Amino acid sequence: MQANKHITSTQNPLIKKVLLLKEKSRERKKTGLFILEGLRELQIASNAGYDIDTILFCEGILENSSEIQTFSSDQLISVTLDIYKKLAYRDTTEGIIAILKSKNHELSSLKFENKNPLVLIAEAPEKPGNIGALLRTADAANLDAVLIANPKTDLYNPNIIRSSVGCIFSRNVKMGSTTEIISYLKKEGFQIFCAALSASKDYTTVDFNESTAIVVGTEHSGLSEEWLNNSAQNIIIPMEGEIDSMNVSVSAAILIFEAKRQRKLNK
Amino acid sequence: MQANKHITSTQNPLIKKVLLLKEKSRERKKTGLFILEGLRELQIASNAGYDIDTILFCEGILENSSEIQTFSSDQLISVTLDIYKKLAYRDTTEGIIAILKSKNHELSSLKFENKNPLVLIAEAPEKPGNIGALLRTADAANLDAVLIANPKTDLYNPNIIRSSVGCIFSRNVKMGSTTEIISYLKKEGFQIFCAALSASKDYTTVDFNESTAIVVGTEHSGLSEEWLNNSAQNIIIPMEGEIDSMNVSVSAAILIFEAKRQRKLNK
Repeated sequence: MQANKHITSTQNPLIKKVLLLKEKSRERKKTGLFILEGLRELQIASNAGYDIDTILFCEGILENSSEIQTFSSDQLISVTLDIYKKLAYRDTTEGIIAILKSKNHELSSLKFENKNPLVLIAEAPEKPGNIGALLRTADAANLDAVLIANPKTDLYNPNIIRSSVGCIFSRNVKMGSTTEIISYLKKEGFQIFCAALSASKDYTTVDFNESTAIVVGTEHSGLSEEWLNNSAQNIIIPMEGEIDSMNVSVSAAILIFEAKRQRKLNK
Repeated sequence: MQANKHITSTQNPLIKKVLLLKEKSRERKKTGLFILEGLRELQIASNAGYDIDTILFCEGILENSSEIQTFSSDQLISVTLDIYKKLAYRDTTEGIIAILKSKNHELSSLKFENKNPLVLIAEAPEKPGNIGALLRTADAANLDAVLIANPKTDLYNPNIIRSSVGCIFSRNVKMGSTTEIISYLKKEGFQIFCAALSASKDYTTVDFNESTAIVVGTEHSGLSEEWLNNSAQNIIIPMEGEIDSMNVSVSAAILIFEAKRQRKLNK
């Protein structure tokens, strides 16, 4: 394996930097860098146009060393098993940790290719696992965009990256305040459908064929008044159980795929 | 607060028993008991006819002490904060941990009230969080049953209980081998729809109105040959993204709610 550099000390400044990037959102914001674990995720990010700063690899763990050679040897640094274990989530994963440059997720950079886009908006989602699952669904449905309103975490939180299995890189993900996003959607002529309990129509009875924004809140507190006041129609998945609590990523997927079904029929 | 007993030592045999029940599936199977955390979960289980053996509570944490008094004081044991912290997942949750008696989840005990039942089958699901999410969806959709084929974990794994937010108690959940379940479904005249990649029809184009079993495998390895060989029709959610990986509980929910949509239209 070709590598320009080999690090053996956990006191090495680069190793300390990786740990900071992994743990501190502030550090990620300050430097415009983030870290990522795993070969597949790295390939997805690279294909999506993310700039790679550095790739750390541990030869003892790396299963498929040929694939890593497609990256420039200038970027490759080998590390000892001890260091790798200190950096990685799970000791025995693929043996690759990379530092990459963040992208711009400002709303102003959003462009649509389709005539009647279908977008998902999640307001203030808290659990990284839920955000990851939303992004996986968004990828599978080939949504035109996912907008995070009033974000609570930065997008490059390692738990979001991991739980999205790379979908965070392939998606048109933008962030902004609820006010900014509502103003954007209105300007662009979107119908805003808020998932909410009050004044709601069964989601199967509304028409998702025009430019559509499906908006979901948190499981705990739902959507803000600001969204509800700007909703064209609140929609609901009728619940028939005793407990009636679905995971937010599950509810969002049901709504999104009903929109997909209608759009397919209409073609 | 009325309690017959107060425990102050972590060496108390009952405390040791609770820890064993929490950590060891073998202990749960041997004793037919399991543990549960939280007042709401306890109320759901109690309403669903589960027998309560013992309720441990920590007065310092308990937010709403009046509700616990609806349970018999013979069942109530107060514990110190130190003990509670040792037993609980999260130090500061509601201050209630209960020991309950397991129910029978054998397939032979399954009874249907509806003419054309809709059931979900998950083969060998591994992650407790996924099982919990499946049970939440099953509750919301008021499925006639959820069957776990070739289970990898016992149902009373604390992580399943917690992630199901109590839906495990309200549901008609049964377990059995894949062979047993297939034989049961055929005998009962179910159409078996396997979520699979090969020889599959778009899930929106099949008819879910008759007695329907929707079968999902694991994200990693899908369904066994045995299920695929006994499928009336394989179904697929067409994926249009770059990564095409949805969470199993998300995929199952999309299939289930399409079946619900069709059945509502047909009424």
